Amino acid sequence: MKYISLLGATGSIGIQTLDVIRKNPEQFKLLAISAGKNIELVRKIIAEFNPEYVSIQNKADYETLKTEYSQGITFGYGSDGLMEAAVYPKANLLLNAVIGSVGLTPTLQAIKEKKTIALANKETLVTAGHLVMNLAKENNVPIIPVDSEHSAIFQCLQGEKLSSARRLILTASGGSFREYSRAELKNVTIEQALNHPNWSMGSKITIDSATMMNKGLEVIEAHWLFEKPYENIEVLLHRESIIHSMVEYDDSSIIAQLGSPDMRVPIQYALTYPERLDFQTENRLDLAKIGHLQFEEMNFERFRCLKFAYEAGKFGGTMPTVLNAANEEAVHAFLLGKISFLAIEDLIEKALERHNMIKDPDLASIREVDEETRVFVNSLI
Amino acid sequence: MKYISLLGATGSIGIQTLDVIRKNPEQFKLLAISAGKNIELVRKIIAEFNPEYVSIQNKADYETLKTEYSQGITFGYGSDGLMEAAVYPKANLLLNAVIGSVGLTPTLQAIKEKKTIALANKETLVTAGHLVMNLAKENNVPIIPVDSEHSAIFQCLQGEKLSSARRLILTASGGSFREYSRAELKNVTIEQALNHPNWSMGSKITIDSATMMNKGLEVIEAHWLFEKPYENIEVLLHRESIIHSMVEYDDSSIIAQLGSPDMRVPIQYALTYPERLDFQTENRLDLAKIGHLQFEEMNFERFRCLKFAYEAGKFGGTMPTVLNAANEEAVHAFLLGKISFLAIEDLIEKALERHNMIKDPDLASIREVDEETRVFVNSLI
Repeated sequence: MKYISLLGATGSIGIQTLDVIRKNPEQFKLLAISAGKNIELVRKIIAEFNPEYVSIQNKADYETLKTEYSQGITFGYGSDGLMEAAVYPKANLLLNAVIGSVGLTPTLQAIKEKKTIALANKETLVTAGHLVMNLAKENNVPIIPVDSEHSAIFQCLQGEKLSSARRLILTASGGSFREYSRAELKNVTIEQALNHPNWSMGSKITIDSATMMNKGLEVIEAHWLFEKPYENIEVLLHRESIIHSMVEYDDSSIIAQLGSPDMRVPIQYALTYPERLDFQTENRLDLAKIGHLQFEEMNFERFRCLKFAYEAGKFGGTMPTVLNAANEEAVHAFLLGKISFLAIEDLIEKALERHNMIKDPDLASIREVDEETRVFVNSLI
Repeated sequence: MKYISLLGATGSIGIQTLDVIRKNPEQFKLLAISAGKNIELVRKIIAEFNPEYVSIQNKADYETLKTEYSQGITFGYGSDGLMEAAVYPKANLLLNAVIGSVGLTPTLQAIKEKKTIALANKETLVTAGHLVMNLAKENNVPIIPVDSEHSAIFQCLQGEKLSSARRLILTASGGSFREYSRAELKNVTIEQALNHPNWSMGSKITIDSATMMNKGLEVIEAHWLFEKPYENIEVLLHRESIIHSMVEYDDSSIIAQLGSPDMRVPIQYALTYPERLDFQTENRLDLAKIGHLQFEEMNFERFRCLKFAYEAGKFGGTMPTVLNAANEEAVHAFLLGKISFLAIEDLIEKALERHNMIKDPDLASIREVDEETRVFVNSLI
């Protein structure tokens, strides 16, 4: 039995994780959750899963819920509540699906408490990959990726030596605007950007898919998760999102993981690893029905965010923190209608250009650079 | 260091195995070989690899070679020589690449002698899969497939539980005549049949690719190698031969092995397993360059030999022996220009129809049925 703490329970990954838990009551027990502002959904989760600990973003919602459920559940709120949910003592697995850099500290603390980490929070590895992976090694804690691309690579590495893997090939669907020229990108709307061709995801990650920053962040995550230099990590445009990613070995053999796009599959794998469990779906991959798969080289001029991510990753230190913080603020501004789509990459470029990189940053430096970058980017909006 | 005995050294797989050994003198030492009638090539192999034991098909060639090399090499011939090469005491790995059912007895004996078996001889598993796999289990000997499809499945199963694999998907290029209608197949020539679109192989296996019997034999081999019922083994038409085969797991995740078509890759993997070794090639897979991969359902009416193979496999017992023996004789007759291309499948059908299946046959029964089938098929030619 896996006893699960789920951070970000009301988000897209959180809801799909709940579905996996729902369908496998013999394998999984949800013990602790954190959520944002959707307290109506929190009430439903409590009614169905009966968790022991619930953390919510705001104090007001915390007070409301605490009054409603007078016994049996412990409530918390804010960053303290998030932390308490992450290290809930009876849980042995933390699935971290919060969005943004608030996900970092709870992950680090849960590693210290020897929880198995199922990681869906990109910022954890992007901004502090060196801290997270070193701490995980020290504590002998597995970091299991939830993202479909990293889960694919993780699966392709099973039974193999990491040192024999010479190339990681991350596939990219190309996002909402893969058919658009640079000129056409100038006037795209929020609604167009949110219309992803293959995956149903949250709004931040859908915009990141459209700018290709999502793939850029994944490249940096892959660098840390699988200990490979950026030169050995490639991105391949693959429209159908059927091959989720691949690993090329020294002997030129490539192992790939394929499937119909359904995030519940990598989520379930992260929860059951190293075992696999039956997954009921009417949507099993039928390649004959699909007919063909397409592959194209990535255009780094067309997708400038991807180029920025490689550059920030190779530069290292606090550069990826700047990349990530600038991107978060810019995407937020775009979603509020304050800036145009292409302004996202301009803001990121400016933030990267102005930053003096700090090598091997500690948590305090990362937080400082993160905050400072957000202030700078917002000053330009 | 792997000390290798190579049966079928002058055939297509044998020659490619020699190339792998040539390029990795630190890893591999060739100790014993068997060959057919190409004694000119045998002389070259002796000069380059300096094996300790050489077996040749005919006594006359044996006498010739024995006179030429008066010391340092032991020679043998015929089935006794083949057996001595297979169980050469100092060798710890047997790569069996002889063609036809003569490959069976040496494999069984080498298993008893605890040699690791790299298997490129299809008939070994097709006709006596139950005997081979049971003996291998008893002796705790790994059977490592050399064929690209089975090597792919073997690789896709690394680090996974065989019991979690719910479907094996063998890919098929479709062979020389994949664009031909049944009517067009009537008058095809030997030269057309030998012109395989993707792979350079021996003539028997190239004809088997054109009739799709090759894939049928592979289905039966997969059944034995990976202990899966025929219902869970599928064949998928995939023209490019880039995905060499796949495994679908219980959670709907599919693991695939890909690469440019080059038999030396699975040969090397069989020799280095469970490790991988660098493979120098200018032909590493570049999916962006290839652009797209195609998949189609297999047409069992168009490819009747594949249907026969599934039926013979499911029927079990001596049926696959009949299938294989009838096919060998029919293909031989086609290559000699004695029968038409479509007569191959007619002869196989007749042989299967007339046979009274023997359950759980021992080696003697298998040999008897094999011989009897050959006589019957030749009586019809």
